[in-house]
Amino acid sequence: MTYCVGLLLKQGIVLLSDTRTNGGLDNIATYRKMFSFERPGERVITILTAGSLSVTQTTLARIRDAIEDENATPETSILLAPTMLQVCEIIGNTLASVRTGIDAKMTAGTVPTSATMIVAGQRATGDMRMFLVYSEGNFIEATEDTPYLQIGEHKYGKPILDRVVTTDTSLEDAQKAVLLSMDSTLRSNLSVGMPLDLAIIRRDALRVTERRRIEPKDPDFARMSEAWSKALRDGFGQIEL
Amino acid sequence: MTYCVGLLLKQGIVLLSDTRTNGGLDNIATYRKMFSFERPGERVITILTAGSLSVTQTTLARIRDAIEDENATPETSILLAPTMLQVCEIIGNTLASVRTGIDAKMTAGTVPTSATMIVAGQRATGDMRMFLVYSEGNFIEATEDTPYLQIGEHKYGKPILDRVVTTDTSLEDAQKAVLLSMDSTLRSNLSVGMPLDLAIIRRDALRVTERRRIEPKDPDFARMSEAWSKALRDGFGQIEL
Repeated sequence: MTYCVGLLLKQGIVLLSDTRTNGGLDNIATYRKMFSFERPGERVITILTAGSLSVTQTTLARIRDAIEDENATPETSILLAPTMLQVCEIIGNTLASVRTGIDAKMTAGTVPTSATMIVAGQRATGDMRMFLVYSEGNFIEATEDTPYLQIGEHKYGKPILDRVVTTDTSLEDAQKAVLLSMDSTLRSNLSVGMPLDLAIIRRDALRVTERRRIEPKDPDFARMSEAWSKALRDGFGQIEL
Repeated sequence: MTYCVGLLLKQGIVLLSDTRTNGGLDNIATYRKMFSFERPGERVITILTAGSLSVTQTTLARIRDAIEDENATPETSILLAPTMLQVCEIIGNTLASVRTGIDAKMTAGTVPTSATMIVAGQRATGDMRMFLVYSEGNFIEATEDTPYLQIGEHKYGKPILDRVVTTDTSLEDAQKAVLLSMDSTLRSNLSVGMPLDLAIIRRDALRVTERRRIEPKDPDFARMSEAWSKALRDGFGQIEL
């Protein structure tokens, strides 16, 4: 499984993904699930992926091929598309086409392959936007009312987001929120695993402004995780029945 | 949806269920999902249900019929079965048989019906035991290592259980834990709803020792929920990135 989360805030975009993939429980590996595409100062696009690795890898490969194609057009390349909406449509169409192609190769009776993506970014003169793209290529968009999107194993980490994140949340608090949301998920589901990839895209920076890989023994993450456990236990202890 | 949770602790058993059922999002109703069967001083059995209402209601009706049958035997009546394991087997077999019967009536192409149950209780001279019964009638049992079982919409409420519940948890803390676990679920999933049913079975009491229905405006639950939100926000605020 996977857990990826993105926050779309007034100050910027905060993205976090894990890196564990598994085919069954005994075939576990580490794969990056966060991919950035930039023309610094003109546009920044970050994609987070969940679901079938064969689908997400092939989709990303096709997106890259389309960018590098010497005949690339605004209809085919996410680095040329005129709006974030059209970027998202290219990604959605690519994902749907890859998934349909792979499904066609599967013998009858197997479950359909599935993958979802979070697409976040900004173009010069445009707003920051963030989308959740489904397997079929359709998508929904984060709004002021619901400023976060999650893919993969999302339920364990949702309660903390519901409680602390609004569109006005600072980038610092937002990083804490996504890391603690991930921490709850890591504790409750073994198939989500470290290391983690964290990225921040400040409003109007038009590039990934901060990028951090958090390794399994990262002392800051361990301290934060322990402090959160203590805060929960202390808070729990103080509540009267 | 539904959320039900049971804790099997050294001091006793703590059970909590919501009461919301829905067929689609616009056909919402309140149904009890907690059912107790007692021969006070000899045995106590409590069943929590999740899943298809037609399956769980029919299963409970058959279990009651079997108890009241004048030819009831230890193989058919959960009030006569010699051990909690055999109680659980009767319930599992009844559930599987009801589900198979209902599935047979469904036209092809619909999803199979599904239901799960938590069965908890104690017989005189026996230990307290708690089981999670699957649609197919098979089951797993709570242990010292994993003293809780959940059915229905279980993920939102799992992180707090993972952090605070052990087999040594007091009955008072256990009530807090299941109520706060439910509170997280209520906030994150609209299809889980108040009122709530809470039951406590103290070790060796051989009856339900406390029973409480928590209505939507219950002041104690509202206070606890608010205190927990505050504790989480305060804890969150104090953590350094």
